[in-house]
Amino acid sequence: MTKQELINIIKSKQSFLCIGLDTDLEKIPKFLLDFEDPIFEFNKRIIDATHDLCVAYKPNIAFYECHGSKGWDSLKKTMEYIPKGLFTIADAKRGDIGNTSTFYAKTFFEYLNFDSVTVAPYMGVDSVTPFLEFDNKWVILLALTSNQGAMDFQFMTDQQGEKLYEKVIRKSSQWASSERLMYVVGATRGEGIGEVRKCAPDSFFLVPGVGAQGGSLKDVADYGLTKDCGLLVNSSRAILYAGKDENFAIAARSEAQQVQIEMKEILKAANLI
Amino acid sequence: MTKQELINIIKSKQSFLCIGLDTDLEKIPKFLLDFEDPIFEFNKRIIDATHDLCVAYKPNIAFYECHGSKGWDSLKKTMEYIPKGLFTIADAKRGDIGNTSTFYAKTFFEYLNFDSVTVAPYMGVDSVTPFLEFDNKWVILLALTSNQGAMDFQFMTDQQGEKLYEKVIRKSSQWASSERLMYVVGATRGEGIGEVRKCAPDSFFLVPGVGAQGGSLKDVADYGLTKDCGLLVNSSRAILYAGKDENFAIAARSEAQQVQIEMKEILKAANLI
Repeated sequence: MTKQELINIIKSKQSFLCIGLDTDLEKIPKFLLDFEDPIFEFNKRIIDATHDLCVAYKPNIAFYECHGSKGWDSLKKTMEYIPKGLFTIADAKRGDIGNTSTFYAKTFFEYLNFDSVTVAPYMGVDSVTPFLEFDNKWVILLALTSNQGAMDFQFMTDQQGEKLYEKVIRKSSQWASSERLMYVVGATRGEGIGEVRKCAPDSFFLVPGVGAQGGSLKDVADYGLTKDCGLLVNSSRAILYAGKDENFAIAARSEAQQVQIEMKEILKAANLI
Repeated sequence: MTKQELINIIKSKQSFLCIGLDTDLEKIPKFLLDFEDPIFEFNKRIIDATHDLCVAYKPNIAFYECHGSKGWDSLKKTMEYIPKGLFTIADAKRGDIGNTSTFYAKTFFEYLNFDSVTVAPYMGVDSVTPFLEFDNKWVILLALTSNQGAMDFQFMTDQQGEKLYEKVIRKSSQWASSERLMYVVGATRGEGIGEVRKCAPDSFFLVPGVGAQGGSLKDVADYGLTKDCGLLVNSSRAILYAGKDENFAIAARSEAQQVQIEMKEILKAANLI
């Protein structure tokens, strides 16, 4: 998917919502456990109930991988079920030496046909660029994450006053343009997103941490919105587990709709729609 | 496996060789492609031919994952085939927020029963500690890698003169002792390993990059050996693909044996055996 196509979807759906498919057998309604593939059954119903309200789905690969080959089958079926025209993100946080990163890229871009994959920057240029060699596929690079441990290394400041996450953005912007490269930018504080926006004025940010992880959508938009929107805001648990019984998909839709309505207002106020 | 058990294996086998199972359908002998599970067939014969010469096997997860559920089955069968008493490393380079890292830990430590997993440090403490909550299981944290991109961020120096890889070692050593935590330390230059050894005098280092990636075993030992050995030196392609025909396992054994003999001399010279 191209950047312009993504912008078009955001405008037509009046939404920049990404729904994280962190599908956990311990948290899904119990009646689904009687199905042959409970994870896929859950995802299918969530997708049916929400696909008109969001622009992206983001399966968290750990939740599939922990079931071994069965989990990978659930993931593949889920990917095949997501309607065309939605942006898909493999939240995998991979990154390795060149030829290994190429295998990871093939996994997510070819075998599973994702539009994008999240990548960890620690190993530098040759761990990231193999993911950039696939047409119309995206890298979403970890920059500033929303967890407590983000403080350990990401704010490290060098002798010129540049922080590690700033260096990650500055260097990686030489490896690909904002047409191919997005950043993960955590949302625990809106001002934090504003700081990152200064480093990457044209890039899309994938913002986790709204909802269960505690960020405010208005803050994120105030500090992060660009002339192209430039934001994909993720919500996982708050939507997936809004309901616990047979009506869980209706509850999920209701939760997603509330977010979408708020997003529509934000896009209108910014004259983006 | 405990640290003492690992040391005992090294001494009894007179080897600190780790064999990387980077099993690539494009590189294995063609006749194996007629088997139902060529990857497992290849691994099985490599393991049969080398298990008395090495102390660890390290499947590179990307090479399995790219085949989807079938690849995960090959990986599981490989794990079940590796003889007891060998140390096993999931070279996965995972790392995510807490509850996601827990799922990754369950994948590798419970579902696949690995002794250890490689973890990327970028997201900090709560991305690493979930892997440390499993008895007798190890984290092998990326510190200084052997690829070109290591220069991009790992040598970043803060205002107190501390490099990023040094900070990773210093901080992580507060999360777990050398009984549970090792480091990936690249081997393109022996002196580099010496620098890292100063930061982590008692820790085991997993050293990739000897062989195809270009490091010298003697240099690694000169700069990295401790009173407990403290080294697992990996070789993947040089051993796996030493031969290209029906006799590939014999060629692999011969290559592994050359390395083991060199390691025995090193251990003897250091009075470790």
